[in-house]
Amino acid sequence: MATNSLHDLFLSTLRDVYYAERRLLKALPKMARAAQNADLKQAFTDHREETQQHVERLQQVFEVIGQRPRGKTCEAIEGLVGEAEELLGEAPTPSAVRDAGLIACGQAVEHYEIARYGALTSWAKGLGHTEAETLLHLTLTEEKAADRLLGQIAAGSVNREALRPAA
Amino acid sequence: MATNSLHDLFLSTLRDVYYAERRLLKALPKMARAAQNADLKQAFTDHREETQQHVERLQQVFEVIGQRPRGKTCEAIEGLVGEAEELLGEAPTPSAVRDAGLIACGQAVEHYEIARYGALTSWAKGLGHTEAETLLHLTLTEEKAADRLLGQIAAGSVNREALRPAA
Repeated sequence: MATNSLHDLFLSTLRDVYYAERRLLKALPKMARAAQNADLKQAFTDHREETQQHVERLQQVFEVIGQRPRGKTCEAIEGLVGEAEELLGEAPTPSAVRDAGLIACGQAVEHYEIARYGALTSWAKGLGHTEAETLLHLTLTEEKAADRLLGQIAAGSVNREALRPAA
Repeated sequence: MATNSLHDLFLSTLRDVYYAERRLLKALPKMARAAQNADLKQAFTDHREETQQHVERLQQVFEVIGQRPRGKTCEAIEGLVGEAEELLGEAPTPSAVRDAGLIACGQAVEHYEIARYGALTSWAKGLGHTEAETLLHLTLTEEKAADRLLGQIAAGSVNREALRPAA
């Protein structure tokens, strides 16, 4: 697709993040199952629910701008999620070390989404799509909160657990 | 490499971000040449210089932990930089729209680095690598500033220019 206008750029980025959120929907249950720390397991489980809402909000955004929801392969999220899956596929990693790695992967994904929703929110504002702006900003706020929560779980317990010699 | 300890995870992530910074060193001059907005061109040019310093700082971190600097292919940065290069390869995109897209790509890269340096800084602290922690935290601060600057350039001029009909 040629990008002839800010509208085209907005739509193409919307498709990119729609793909990314749906890719995440599949990865998060695996991350939740693999997590050993109870807070981390809960955070991934809760974020799976939030991600479902983010997908639905994106569908609403497509609707308000008169477009059918459609994803566009996003190599960045494939790389980010691939790093998490690589970690899960590794032979015996002590569980707290794996938790620390999963948090880092999760935060990298959150930051990708923060960047994407940040751009989309400011473009929606510029384009006068007020309803889309509100929806995108709500998700942006939730992605920032998810990143903070993961950082708190790392600092609060997981990093310390990961420093203990494996049993 | 098996990840048996927080040290292994730290080293593997260090290699990942070392690869990413060197990949960026090659991409930033192209992004600077393509940018039409003078502030954006300058921001990419300045960040190329900063990125060179980040590479050197990572080499110091490898040294203080007694390791030879080595990169590890990072699919996430390939995806992120690939999105910028795809935008540059597109047929006639109005220059202000391309600038808006370049900013979004640049911010996605910054956020990737913020996530990576955030994890590395907290692990260096946990592992007692005080000098490494200081070096990594300095780069983290600069990546956050680079992200803010790109956001300011978007809000200050580029997004408005991108809304004007192409001449």
